[in-house]
Amino acid sequence: MSNFYEKESAAFKACVESLKTKNEKVVVIGHVRPDGDCIGSTVAMVRILRSQGIDAVGVNNDEVPANLKFLIGDTPFYLASEFTNEEHICITVDSADYKRVGPSLNEMFTEVFLNIDHHISNKQYSKNDIIIGSASATAEVIMGFVLDLGWEIDATTAQALYVGIATDTGQFRFPSTTKDTFEMVKALCDFGAKPSEAANELYENESFARIKLIQLFLASLKIECDGRVCFGFLTDSMYQESGASIDDADGLVDYARSIEGIEIGVLLEERKGTLKGSLRAKDPKFRVDQIAQAFGGGGHACAAGLNVSEMAIEAFKPQVLAKIKEQFALLEKE
Amino acid sequence: MSNFYEKESAAFKACVESLKTKNEKVVVIGHVRPDGDCIGSTVAMVRILRSQGIDAVGVNNDEVPANLKFLIGDTPFYLASEFTNEEHICITVDSADYKRVGPSLNEMFTEVFLNIDHHISNKQYSKNDIIIGSASATAEVIMGFVLDLGWEIDATTAQALYVGIATDTGQFRFPSTTKDTFEMVKALCDFGAKPSEAANELYENESFARIKLIQLFLASLKIECDGRVCFGFLTDSMYQESGASIDDADGLVDYARSIEGIEIGVLLEERKGTLKGSLRAKDPKFRVDQIAQAFGGGGHACAAGLNVSEMAIEAFKPQVLAKIKEQFALLEKE
Repeated sequence: MSNFYEKESAAFKACVESLKTKNEKVVVIGHVRPDGDCIGSTVAMVRILRSQGIDAVGVNNDEVPANLKFLIGDTPFYLASEFTNEEHICITVDSADYKRVGPSLNEMFTEVFLNIDHHISNKQYSKNDIIIGSASATAEVIMGFVLDLGWEIDATTAQALYVGIATDTGQFRFPSTTKDTFEMVKALCDFGAKPSEAANELYENESFARIKLIQLFLASLKIECDGRVCFGFLTDSMYQESGASIDDADGLVDYARSIEGIEIGVLLEERKGTLKGSLRAKDPKFRVDQIAQAFGGGGHACAAGLNVSEMAIEAFKPQVLAKIKEQFALLEKE
Repeated sequence: MSNFYEKESAAFKACVESLKTKNEKVVVIGHVRPDGDCIGSTVAMVRILRSQGIDAVGVNNDEVPANLKFLIGDTPFYLASEFTNEEHICITVDSADYKRVGPSLNEMFTEVFLNIDHHISNKQYSKNDIIIGSASATAEVIMGFVLDLGWEIDATTAQALYVGIATDTGQFRFPSTTKDTFEMVKALCDFGAKPSEAANELYENESFARIKLIQLFLASLKIECDGRVCFGFLTDSMYQESGASIDDADGLVDYARSIEGIEIGVLLEERKGTLKGSLRAKDPKFRVDQIAQAFGGGGHACAAGLNVSEMAIEAFKPQVLAKIKEQFALLEKE
């Protein structure tokens, strides 16, 4: 048996024991606009709880994205609008702020029993918060528990956790990728995870509309701050022209960051009157979470997001740029 | 100590012992147009031999690509044109055919002492051939020896082997990625490999010109054959408009293949009067090598290429399309 998170694994076990003893019904929920780690962690947590004899189901505010549907298998998983709360006990995964699960689930569950996450910015809103900031993904946190506790998981659970880790590390490219990540992935393969099958599902089913959206986005890229920052935009008219949906914007900000010399990539995106910002840094020292926080957002040191309302891209861009320059100036002082 | 390749690790050790005993000078060479696995394996093999007290250097026919230069460190590594053979004993890495090292090295070394590779098609042209077809990369073969023999490697060697594995598996996406791959990568991290630093060097130094070329290429994509084939183009004028070089076209055909429903992606590229075609299939059953062969090209079942002269894109595209339709028809008959 391994020892990734001694205290936290024991705390998780105690939570599971308590749910089992009280014969509770459990709902596992994740954040809106679910990504690979959110769906992977929800599916895995539901299946792990069920393997422990607990009546658990997964629920999300939004549809599971098309390229993640293969993870669900025979896991009971519902849309919030289809789900009826029958005094279910609520567990959140991968949700730094309870608001992130969406208003309908916020209303349905006023109390959270257990909150499992890897975001250091997690607001610790539950009865039992288990936050491991050093983990690359919530799926890595969950796999740590599995290995520490010596539990068995099935191949569907292993694949769900694998996809959580593979997607949240950008295929093992982000600084969050550690030797623990690879050790856990090796163990996931032992339990039946299939990396290349996952990759086919994740990356070889792009819609043509998304390809068009990427094309329009790349045409929007502008270099700022003497080549240190790259901004890109997604406007309502680009969505119309390409026929793409908002899910198709996932990962586009990485193109802005990937350019030679660029330290921070930014995506500003129009969404029906609100503006969504995504920030990606090459180095954690840039603390883009702090930049996002200045506009009410948050996230990780290298990847953060924000939302503002009633703001045009042209008006907001200079504000973000000013804050980035402030951050650069602070770093130079250090 | 591990046991990945019992017999082969022992054979490798015997080769090293013999070189050491005879106090031989050694040259490690790889294939022309070197990729991450070629450079990573050459660097690692040179350093491992040197750590065993052997006077080893690396040589390649071609320049080390810009995004792989960070791997070299203080490793003695030369261009073939700069190198003088002083009765060096020759070891090849990652080279399935001895012709692949280029004519000048073929001439310089008429005998190969040791041939280490993971290509099942390896022609076994040396005194000691060690071919492990199940390994994802030649770097994985070398790391297997290191672990089996319980040898120590430094951080530069670990990073070189990491990059060999990461690039040859397409960042752990290809079917060659196994649990052994992840176990070795975990060990490489223990020895000092830094996955995110490697990823920054490999993937976060895109030229803005390449980004523009991608944008123009994506705008050229056309779906054919009821959504089964996607064609994209790169014209001389796109290179001029973007300022990109032909190396910037690497990997662009993958966008054409990655689209939902697409079975074969095709890139047709103008190159000073000749036309270069690249074909990529999602499934080996499409045998794009046979399609390429019809135009004097060749390659693998899933990835093939061809060159034709004095042909315009508009005139050549229908010919390729006709051949693809023929291939589809043949498959339907089977």
